[in-house]
Amino acid sequence: MSSTFFYNGPVLTMDGECKVIDCGWLEVEGGKVAGFGEYIQGQTQIPAASEGVDLEGNLLMPGLINAHTHAAMTILRGFSDDLPLMDWLGEIFKVEKNLTSDWVRTGTELACIEMIKSGTIAASDMYIFEDAAMDAFDRSGMRAVCGEGMFDFPSPSLSDVESMFAEVERLAEKWKNHSRVKLALMPHATYTCSPDLLIRAGEVAEKYGMMFHTHISETENEVHMVKDKYGKNPLMHLDNLGLVNERLMGAHMVWLDDNDIALAAQKGVKMLHCPESNMKLASGFAPVAKLLAAGVCVALGTDGTASNNNLDMFTEMDYAAKIHKGYMLDATVTSDRDVLKMATVNGAKALGIDKITGSLAVGKSADLIVVDFSAPHLVPVYDYISHLVYSVSGSDVKHTMVEGKWLMKGRKVLTLDEKKVISDINEIAKEARKFHKNSVSN
Amino acid sequence: MSSTFFYNGPVLTMDGECKVIDCGWLEVEGGKVAGFGEYIQGQTQIPAASEGVDLEGNLLMPGLINAHTHAAMTILRGFSDDLPLMDWLGEIFKVEKNLTSDWVRTGTELACIEMIKSGTIAASDMYIFEDAAMDAFDRSGMRAVCGEGMFDFPSPSLSDVESMFAEVERLAEKWKNHSRVKLALMPHATYTCSPDLLIRAGEVAEKYGMMFHTHISETENEVHMVKDKYGKNPLMHLDNLGLVNERLMGAHMVWLDDNDIALAAQKGVKMLHCPESNMKLASGFAPVAKLLAAGVCVALGTDGTASNNNLDMFTEMDYAAKIHKGYMLDATVTSDRDVLKMATVNGAKALGIDKITGSLAVGKSADLIVVDFSAPHLVPVYDYISHLVYSVSGSDVKHTMVEGKWLMKGRKVLTLDEKKVISDINEIAKEARKFHKNSVSN
Repeated sequence: MSSTFFYNGPVLTMDGECKVIDCGWLEVEGGKVAGFGEYIQGQTQIPAASEGVDLEGNLLMPGLINAHTHAAMTILRGFSDDLPLMDWLGEIFKVEKNLTSDWVRTGTELACIEMIKSGTIAASDMYIFEDAAMDAFDRSGMRAVCGEGMFDFPSPSLSDVESMFAEVERLAEKWKNHSRVKLALMPHATYTCSPDLLIRAGEVAEKYGMMFHTHISETENEVHMVKDKYGKNPLMHLDNLGLVNERLMGAHMVWLDDNDIALAAQKGVKMLHCPESNMKLASGFAPVAKLLAAGVCVALGTDGTASNNNLDMFTEMDYAAKIHKGYMLDATVTSDRDVLKMATVNGAKALGIDKITGSLAVGKSADLIVVDFSAPHLVPVYDYISHLVYSVSGSDVKHTMVEGKWLMKGRKVLTLDEKKVISDINEIAKEARKFHKNSVSN
Repeated sequence: MSSTFFYNGPVLTMDGECKVIDCGWLEVEGGKVAGFGEYIQGQTQIPAASEGVDLEGNLLMPGLINAHTHAAMTILRGFSDDLPLMDWLGEIFKVEKNLTSDWVRTGTELACIEMIKSGTIAASDMYIFEDAAMDAFDRSGMRAVCGEGMFDFPSPSLSDVESMFAEVERLAEKWKNHSRVKLALMPHATYTCSPDLLIRAGEVAEKYGMMFHTHISETENEVHMVKDKYGKNPLMHLDNLGLVNERLMGAHMVWLDDNDIALAAQKGVKMLHCPESNMKLASGFAPVAKLLAAGVCVALGTDGTASNNNLDMFTEMDYAAKIHKGYMLDATVTSDRDVLKMATVNGAKALGIDKITGSLAVGKSADLIVVDFSAPHLVPVYDYISHLVYSVSGSDVKHTMVEGKWLMKGRKVLTLDEKKVISDINEIAKEARKFHKNSVSN
């Protein structure tokens, strides 16, 4: 594999503290970070066999990690907004019940293009027809930790619980040797999955050493439902089933009490914070400052585009840093540093891939992005971290690389055919639009 | 003046309801909107003398209006973050006390470039050395309603209250015939301006028919201070002074009670909502849903870049639409339609320029933007308004036009020299950096 040598610009490795080397170099060899350091013009040698990338006016950093999404829901972007959760789900399901494997593949391709273009190198994806989604992630060059959504009732892809477990076993076998695309167990939630389903999913996760990703306490109503049924709130109910451990990725975790937070910290639960979705769907404010103070690993996700409505992790960082300050009336909570960690090192921990990625340490995978700092909205610079969280948007990302391979160079996505995917999505939308009352006609 | 004919794409006029003509045309002549309608290929005539602009893949709409900013604070972008308000102000003031007219001019130029590039055609700007800011707005081609900040104490530009009023009179004379750049009275706030200063500013506003723009109830602490001093909260105190009327532009208005809201509605106060700043500075949640329900004209602003940290009104719309849903646990409040009005027609009303701009009605100024809808994060389209609020970012704006003149075409700003301004700002930042402890060295 070829080598790439980045030089002459700020380098943020996220290896340890959020320290930026003001003028640095970083070498990629065999898909891995081979070294980095301070670049001194005239002294630092650029290896002859390397592709040299001058970072002047740009910043090099680890690519971002989207810890909770439903990628294929790009086909439902803006399909329904500003409705109470149950009405909104009703609108969305009008299309979802007609989903096909091809739609999921194409929707996920669009999501991958959008994520690559906004600096995301890995995602944890929960949806249906997930084999097709995994195929799209594979071809995109991104990393992904994926799972077929599991429910007590039939999903649009699978007719019953037995078929769901059979599919998980099939996918586990099919994807077991993939370096980037991995399987996880993804039972939907405690209010849609019986204790039996959840326990069995936990056993499969244990058997294969996989993560266990589920929605936890997203809304107050969910907590009431689960308490009514099982006498405990969702996290305590999962604990009762023996499922609260380091494998547990809990999406949302908005309505937690202090016991939940203590338990999450003690058992090493990964909290997947989705601030934009929590605002848009009126779910509420997750106790992020308390979770961080308790030492919980908080990662960051966009959720699906039907409740966001984009996959830009830079905007998501901006939300994560700001809304808790407003809600708690304390400008010191969820600092820019805290939030940048959520989107990088903590994301990798949450997905169970932190030995491989999440920071640019020597020997780790070269999963990185180059952000263009020459735009007027990023001038002047007193503090790169502040800009990354509060000023940059996804469109400022110039290059994206995973395992040393360019996924995007100079804003051009190299792994998927952007024009064709957009054209395919527009064809799908013609079908989906039949279920949308007030849609534009194009 | 030449004429421009836009055709063959969606046209959103904001004239009346938020209706999009799916495939429309709009003609600009003599700087004004000459007409618009449905475009039918082969039937609609493109005037021979016009510059034709094919809208395929794009959307034409009114430019956005930033109703509250401190434009020159771009020089302090990211200078200080994540601190309690008073500590933050202390850091910011280390630089502000050294401000010069040239710094304000250059800082405002950068702000104008950023605003033009993110689709903003008008701003209401409160700062010091405002003559220099007005000069920058003038040369940028944008609209602006500007004011010199007034205080009981010396400002970095003026030594006392008499000098401040003398400066206002001078500026009123100097700018009285400008079609785009207008003066307003801008006493800072009820906690920094005596009743005498406020009353006198009100008289000057009345004399010249100008708007009266001030900060109102931004923080809980401010309300306590004003109540302690005057026995009334800020809005009631202003009402007591005879200053609550249709000229009043109230920035922030976070800590209002029901009587304030009723008074604001009854007297035609313009509320300038700054959601990102309110979150970042931990000020709190303005009662926007209640204000809208009461019929108050709510406009939208970014505040300065030191508390945001950018001037992107598209992201600001996203915040305004989402955070109140999360805070009120009600997904139906602050709809995408409500918010788009805040950033267009309501902005124009708030600035007192709604007879001229804010929507694309025949005879109004051709103050418009073209948004590129071909990017992957804007596909597919079921509802253009949803995308404008929840998915578009400022970098999707392709062209910006004011009074029929191109300020930006194909992402290139035509009125100011982007490279030179960025270079000048970087020189200023070298000076400002002396007051910043942990800054990068470049």
